[in-house]
Amino acid sequence: MSREDPDVIDSVEKAFRLLQSFSAERPAMTVSSAAAATGLTRATARRILLTLQRLGFAETDGREFRLTAGVLRLGYGYLAALPFWEHAQPHMRALSDELREASSMATLDGGEIVYVARVPAPRSMSITLNVGSRLPAYPTSMGRVLLAALPDDELRSYLDTAELRRLTPHTTTDAGKLRAELRRVREQGYAVVDGEREEGVRSAAAPVRGSGGQVLAALNVSANAARVTLDELRDVFVPRLLETAEAISRDIAGLH
Amino acid sequence: MSREDPDVIDSVEKAFRLLQSFSAERPAMTVSSAAAATGLTRATARRILLTLQRLGFAETDGREFRLTAGVLRLGYGYLAALPFWEHAQPHMRALSDELREASSMATLDGGEIVYVARVPAPRSMSITLNVGSRLPAYPTSMGRVLLAALPDDELRSYLDTAELRRLTPHTTTDAGKLRAELRRVREQGYAVVDGEREEGVRSAAAPVRGSGGQVLAALNVSANAARVTLDELRDVFVPRLLETAEAISRDIAGLH
Repeated sequence: MSREDPDVIDSVEKAFRLLQSFSAERPAMTVSSAAAATGLTRATARRILLTLQRLGFAETDGREFRLTAGVLRLGYGYLAALPFWEHAQPHMRALSDELREASSMATLDGGEIVYVARVPAPRSMSITLNVGSRLPAYPTSMGRVLLAALPDDELRSYLDTAELRRLTPHTTTDAGKLRAELRRVREQGYAVVDGEREEGVRSAAAPVRGSGGQVLAALNVSANAARVTLDELRDVFVPRLLETAEAISRDIAGLH
Repeated sequence: MSREDPDVIDSVEKAFRLLQSFSAERPAMTVSSAAAATGLTRATARRILLTLQRLGFAETDGREFRLTAGVLRLGYGYLAALPFWEHAQPHMRALSDELREASSMATLDGGEIVYVARVPAPRSMSITLNVGSRLPAYPTSMGRVLLAALPDDELRSYLDTAELRRLTPHTTTDAGKLRAELRRVREQGYAVVDGEREEGVRSAAAPVRGSGGQVLAALNVSANAARVTLDELRDVFVPRLLETAEAISRDIAGLH
């Protein structure tokens, strides 16, 4: 990448690549395994790991390296700059309490949604998504709200290039059908998705807007299909969701 | 730094420094303001900002740069590698529901605690801390649980160097007193802090342990002092907190 663009610093790109190669499957890596995971040379992987260690982002037992809680600092500048997440949380908690289901908020990053806040469902013992979790945008209610808010040229570019994989028998994989659904989401002001990302999970999402009306994030409520019918989602959840999204939007407008 | 240590890559250190200079007070920066905030030259700040943009971590209107949701990816490798956070959340939600107060989980990073999970209080309209938020360890209940679990030499080094600032009239600022309190925390298996970080906020914390008994994180419940007396915190909250921390620890042990 840097060979084409002298303004892009090669070692920085490599360091971020290595940092992102840590995962649930690879929580600890030796120099060799880090090199293998990233395609970097062992010498480069070693220097980057030592740099990360020196900066407090990694620690080592002399053989394997792990990330430290210090890396959470790196995302924090973004969350702290969001005008809404901290004001949104009490509203999300109230919504979750009332509907007895999880409520989340996400923004768009490329073709993926990124969770910026989440309140788990009461009494739920399921493993949940959390801040920083990512999902493809097209089969999720929050993704559809955020895609529907894109400028036309960006949406066209997304639809032209996105790989719409069939994740369940219900996933919309046809770009034309997705475009029509996004138009509907834009008009009605919310999205409802029924088992398109995960069988048995239904959700509804609505936009959270800034003082100028621009969409800043999507707010959702998700529910187990065994507990909540599609009619209940539309007739009971959606109105409360819209009220909550509007309350959060008003709070944000009040900040200015 | 890199001049002293040839293994530390100078441009990587600078890129992380710049990334961390974005904040709630500085959500958007020009090349000049980024240079001023970090002490980098304008040319270096510009190249790093363009690199961050190219990597999807920043965006620009041509003048100002802002972070994107992409930076949340950087902390996600750490959270994903934690064996406990996703299993802990349902327990935290249940604890928060029962006690009607916020519950959080944190790990230690240097002399600071870093929030890795949080469930806000029901009906609370207060602005809350969130994942990635940082606080000094010494005046917080979670910080004391985590400090109490440090190996003796690390704890000694912390106590020798930490700056114990008076944040409220109740803050313990004497290293000897803090050491005695940490010994007590270690013996009794939990910490109670009353208004030492913030006037009017009481909290209790307990350790979450891995299958080998090592302390992985601290779990807390915090409460407004106007709602919850110190006796109630000790007699009602602490027993439920300990049960919850043990349930989470059992879940973690069950993972192996």
